[in-house]
Formats: sequence, C-alpha cells, structure tokens
Amino acid sequence: MKTNEEFLKEAIDSAIENVRLNDGKPFAALIVKNGEVLAKGVNDVLHIHDPTAHAEIQAIRKAAFRLNSEFLEGCVIYASGHPCPMCLAAIYISGIRTVYYGSSLEQAALHGFGVSHIYTEVGKSNEQRQYPLQQLKVADAEKPFLVWKEVNSPSEFEP
Amino acid sequence: MKTNEEFLKEAIDSAIENVRLNDGKPFAALIVKNGEVLAKGVNDVLHIHDPTAHAEIQAIRKAAFRLNSEFLEGCVIYASGHPCPMCLAAIYISGIRTVYYGSSLEQAALHGFGVSHIYTEVGKSNEQRQYPLQQLKVADAEKPFLVWKEVNSPSEFEP
Repeated sequence: MKTNEEFLKEAIDSAIENVRLNDGKPFAALIVKNGEVLAKGVNDVLHIHDPTAHAEIQAIRKAAFRLNSEFLEGCVIYASGHPCPMCLAAIYISGIRTVYYGSSLEQAALHGFGVSHIYTEVGKSNEQRQYPLQQLKVADAEKPFLVWKEVNSPSEFEP
Repeated sequence: MKTNEEFLKEAIDSAIENVRLNDGKPFAALIVKNGEVLAKGVNDVLHIHDPTAHAEIQAIRKAAFRLNSEFLEGCVIYASGHPCPMCLAAIYISGIRTVYYGSSLEQAALHGFGVSHIYTEVGKSNEQRQYPLQQLKVADAEKPFLVWKEVNSPSEFEP
C-alpha cells in the first residue's frame, strides 16, 4: 500500500498537470479509502466557471458519486494545498476526518492564492463581519422544518 | 421590483416544495441580480448523494453557469435558512456580498439541522481542532505554484 507521502505526491503531480495541460489552477486532491484511490479532483474553476469547483469539492463529488452515498466516513483526503474554508467545511460535512496537505496557507498566499481572509471572515461573529448576513423577519421562515417533520414522521395510522 | 422579503419568501416556498414534492431537505436559495432571479437552488443532497449539494452551492453553480462567469459580484443571495460555513465561504469566494436569510442557525438546530459545530471547528486554529489537518513535508509541495507562475507569466521574448 502506498504511504501518505506517496498519495500526497500524486495529488501534487495532478496539480502540476492541471496547470500544464489543462490551463487550470494549481490545486488537486485525492480521496482514498482502504488504500484505494476513490476519486481525484482538480481545480476546475477556470474551465467551467463554477466558483465552487475547487479540487477538494470536485473530489468529494466524485467519491460520493462513486460510492452512491453522501457519507464519506473512513475516507482520507490528500490535498496539494491547505484547503480553503469552503472545502474544509465540505470535508467535515462529508464525514472525512483525516486531511493531509502539502503547501501551507502562507505559501499559497505568497503566490497569489490567499484564502486566510475568508477563514477570518467566516470565523467571525456576524456583527463583526465585513458583510454581515441579514436575517429578515418573514412569516413561515420555520415552516420548511415543520413540513419536513410532518413528511418524515411515521404516521400514527400506519399499520 | 420585488422586495427583499418577497424574494426571501420565494426561497422559503421553494424549500417547502423541496420537502413536499422532491423528498428533499428543507432548504432553498435564490440568486438575484438587478431585480431578476438568476438562479434557484434547492438542497439536492438526498437526491444526488452529493454532500456539497446544499441549496446555496447549487444556486451559485447555476448562476455562474448562466452568467458564464465565476464572478458573481453584484448578486444578492436569499437563503431560506442561515448558510452553513461551506456555503458562506462559497458565497464570499463567488463575490456575493449581500446575504438575506430566513430561519436562524438556532432554529435549524432545533429541527435537527445544526451546523454551528462546523462553524466552530472551521474557525479554530489548527492545533485546537478536533481533527487537525496534517501537513506532510514532501518535495515539490510548492511546485504547482511555480509552474503556474511559469505558465502564466508573459514571456520575455513575446513581441
């Protein structure tokens, strides 16, 4: 079985290839389960103009598709660079608990790919944010949850 | 032109519809530019088994596809519920600066859709995280950036 360093090296090589052969950004990620590569993702933002198409997100989508499950517990992700907060949250949401990465946030920033400001902004309390989220008081804001409960509760009359 | 409350109500109605008609989770989001609805996203996680298919992410993808651009500056997002950190980071990355939402993080948590622990974990310093990210020292970790620079710098010999 490959070592963690070998899997990470594979992610780094894919990041290089994404720049050289695909005119993409310099990021790639690998998702591995039980020593097998389940999915590889590269940063596709420049190709498909999807701002969410970071390498880790693309790899998560592919791994979930392959497993036919949104739960990626037991998987390990190898990211050529430290994940941004969108990708880190996606990693947690998917159930992945082990993350190995190559370049640091500081190295990425030195090359024009800084995301620390996004970590800062997401981590702030709302009133401290540069762009605070605004809650609007509208009727029925809670209704989607109530309908969810109604639809997903076993009926009393069910046999 | 519709009011902010009317656009948000539309998102909430879509969240309800997603539960009732699509067996989906109770979340939806609308992206609006210059008073026009560019895209609507619903939480598709249960349908397509993509853990990243939250309503805001789906709406961002559709809006970017429609504009053929990963830059959504000037757009406003209306989310039936307070965005999770993955979606909030995606909102920032896409350039959206105005976020209106209906139900709070607390209301969502009461109904079993809590994400505050993910905000906490993403916002921590790495050594404080429950699952710290692990940087591996491998050769070439910085190389994707160097290749990026090489490929994207104007050649000295270009006329």
